[in-house]
Amino acid sequence: MAIRVTVWDEHQPGLSEHYPHGIHGAIAGGLAALLEDRVAVRTALMDEPHHGLPAEVLDATDVLLWWGHLRHDEVSDEVVTEVQRRVLDGMGLLVLHSGQGSKIFRRLLGTSCEMAWRHGDRELLWTVDPGHPIARGVPHPVVIPEQEMYGEPFDIPAPDELVFISSFAGGEVFRSGCCFRRGRGRIFYFSPGHEEHPVYHQKEIRQILANAVEWACPG
Amino acid sequence: MAIRVTVWDEHQPGLSEHYPHGIHGAIAGGLAALLEDRVAVRTALMDEPHHGLPAEVLDATDVLLWWGHLRHDEVSDEVVTEVQRRVLDGMGLLVLHSGQGSKIFRRLLGTSCEMAWRHGDRELLWTVDPGHPIARGVPHPVVIPEQEMYGEPFDIPAPDELVFISSFAGGEVFRSGCCFRRGRGRIFYFSPGHEEHPVYHQKEIRQILANAVEWACPG
Amino acid sequence: MAIRVTVWDEHQPGLSEHYPHGIHGAIAGGLAALLEDRVAVRTALMDEPHHGLPAEVLDATDVLLWWGHLRHDEVSDEVVTEVQRRVLDGMGLLVLHSGQGSKIFRRLLGTSCEMAWRHGDRELLWTVDPGHPIARGVPHPVVIPEQEMYGEPFDIPAPDELVFISSFAGGEVFRSGCCFRRGRGRIFYFSPGHEEHPVYHQKEIRQILANAVEWACPG
Amino acid sequence: MAIRVTVWDEHQPGLSEHYPHGIHGAIAGGLAALLEDRVAVRTALMDEPHHGLPAEVLDATDVLLWWGHLRHDEVSDEVVTEVQRRVLDGMGLLVLHSGQGSKIFRRLLGTSCEMAWRHGDRELLWTVDPGHPIARGVPHPVVIPEQEMYGEPFDIPAPDELVFISSFAGGEVFRSGCCFRRGRGRIFYFSPGHEEHPVYHQKEIRQILANAVEWACPG
Repeated sequence: MAIRVTVWDEHQPGLSEHYPHGIHGAIAGGLAALLEDRVAVRTALMDEPHHGLPAEVLDATDVLLWWGHLRHDEVSDEVVTEVQRRVLDGMGLLVLHSGQGSKIFRRLLGTSCEMAWRHGDRELLWTVDPGHPIARGVPHPVVIPEQEMYGEPFDIPAPDELVFISSFAGGEVFRSGCCFRRGRGRIFYFSPGHEEHPVYHQKEIRQILANAVEWACPG
Repeated sequence: MAIRVTVWDEHQPGLSEHYPHGIHGAIAGGLAALLEDRVAVRTALMDEPHHGLPAEVLDATDVLLWWGHLRHDEVSDEVVTEVQRRVLDGMGLLVLHSGQGSKIFRRLLGTSCEMAWRHGDRELLWTVDPGHPIARGVPHPVVIPEQEMYGEPFDIPAPDELVFISSFAGGEVFRSGCCFRRGRGRIFYFSPGHEEHPVYHQKEIRQILANAVEWACPG
Repeated sequence: MAIRVTVWDEHQPGLSEHYPHGIHGAIAGGLAALLEDRVAVRTALMDEPHHGLPAEVLDATDVLLWWGHLRHDEVSDEVVTEVQRRVLDGMGLLVLHSGQGSKIFRRLLGTSCEMAWRHGDRELLWTVDPGHPIARGVPHPVVIPEQEMYGEPFDIPAPDELVFISSFAGGEVFRSGCCFRRGRGRIFYFSPGHEEHPVYHQKEIRQILANAVEWACPG
Repeated sequence: MAIRVTVWDEHQPGLSEHYPHGIHGAIAGGLAALLEDRVAVRTALMDEPHHGLPAEVLDATDVLLWWGHLRHDEVSDEVVTEVQRRVLDGMGLLVLHSGQGSKIFRRLLGTSCEMAWRHGDRELLWTVDPGHPIARGVPHPVVIPEQEMYGEPFDIPAPDELVFISSFAGGEVFRSGCCFRRGRGRIFYFSPGHEEHPVYHQKEIRQILANAVEWACPG
């Protein structure tokens, strides 16, 4: 049985030269390329009805990926409540990059999820838990040539599992790969992925997302 | 400097013969009796303006205790948001008994906080973490002759520290004393305390609440 | 690829009428019955050379199960050191019942692993984490008609994941199913299983052990 | 009542120009300067009888600090066993820098405690948990101009509380301030402190050690 994945994107057309098919397109393509027939990927966009997440889509989703940045407040509380309920019932959730500020992430964690940030910097992603399934086959470190800096303190509950810690050329550090278990659902937050840089085209990042989809899949 | 404590109570006058001065009165009295001049206790009631928790009260609160049961939905979202913000900024919070269903607890934890329950039963409260400050001076077990049964599964995130586990005469078990850290704040959930039984008059229960107030106090 | 399982048993012939083929025989049989060709099970006994665990056996073991009771001190430090190294390198380890007092468990956890105990009592095993893979298909509660009582406080580090809590007819409670991650290895402690009772023949217990083998298998 | 502190040092006379009175002297002096009469500090050296830790010293120790580097293997197992027992009974333990390789640390944690390392580099120490008592009054980040690099992966169990993460000029990261609870005792590992650099004379490092002594003190 293929894992049914839905990639949600706030999606601003023309946002970035690196993502001619949207960030959702790049992420979905990466998952399909790596996981092949172990995965069935669809996408959902904010401006679609019900933000692209009506009941029939969520009913057919094992793992939801969430990329949002500037329009968190426009996401309807009803959809957030419904996604929260699904996660507690077992649906996996991958929250990406600026999705730390999304309603759904803050709702599930209960904290502000704020952190320090700064434009453009080289990121090194180090594996803290080498035996973790999400770190399988991932080099140590992953070098991301350019990326937005996210820095501590990151106002999240202590993760149930901490997989990656990043440093930036400016010297800052960040818990960049964090697992949370809420209800029957598994949540993975992964910070690399700014729209101004081709991070989601990078081989190692794709591997991490593919691993995380398999980890977060219920059952 | 005394710890400034506010005991919040949903408060239904005449609710219980065991609490002629309200549950808030019994809890406040217990804290004052045990902690003496190390504590300055006030109470706040749901039907007061701003549910008794205007900014000037919260500004002067180091640790807030929360007892609610039947009227969780009537608590205004504004007050919940404000209390959440204070906890993340460092205010301690003790959530008592049926307060597991309160908006503030579910908001801070992100899960449904539901559990199994059943009327009237003997509860034994066992210390799992004998070195924890909240367990100091607490017998093992504490016998609560009559109490409402709360049972697993309890839909909470894994506690950052688990202090007590209870069993009931019917054989059920419950994580009855759970610590959570959110932002700069410390949260303690403590399940004994049904209004039909004089639990808050019991010496050992008073000791636990006094310990928890000192543990949750910021700084 | 089948999971390669080794069931280690202190093994005292004639120890119990319930285990004519030894406890190792009952456990190995249960795993083979449930996991079929997903598992290849062998057994190893204390009185064999190298306690049945020479390098070639450990090299061919993905998950090791450990049942010991009265002869913990007779296990050689060399074998303990070697098993510890293998666990840190990724081998799964299931420690059963009185194995909490074994050298290998205490070595990996660093605490005394002592608890309270008492003879013969009915145990109820409750699932605390219903989404955990080890709890899959397990009734809530599992009723174990007769079993030795193990009670809190249980001197272990806080488990990385707590799956089961038990109560006993005498009212005691125990963290009976605990996951630990050490190095690249996964460890599951499971307390039911006294030799005087046919616990390892019970269907639900077999299911839990089979689930745990799959959970603890590396990679 | 003053906290009774013992600073243990492997101590090689003439080891470093920065520590004319030994590393133990610098640490003891820093604690006394900051905590004043809230603390009573003594020192213990490896080459003293019983490594300076006979029963009467341990009986009179609330918090033990441990600095060792090159002679871990020379520490007697009897002393290690006795210190372990005391920690489980409630004595606080601060393990410093290369003390991650000490017998007592590995005994209490159960893992290899190995990590990557490299000579001389600038370290930035970032607070991950701003509400933690050990981080009180500590700048964000602490700049350590020169220090040995310790890098991930660090083979420890997931800390019960993670307080600090460091980055180095070379880009590496390290969980440099980690809390563990074992038995009734509290353990804090703190990585800055190479003998070739005057780290223990630095104001912020002294503050962290003073905070940690108060945090680790039993009762």
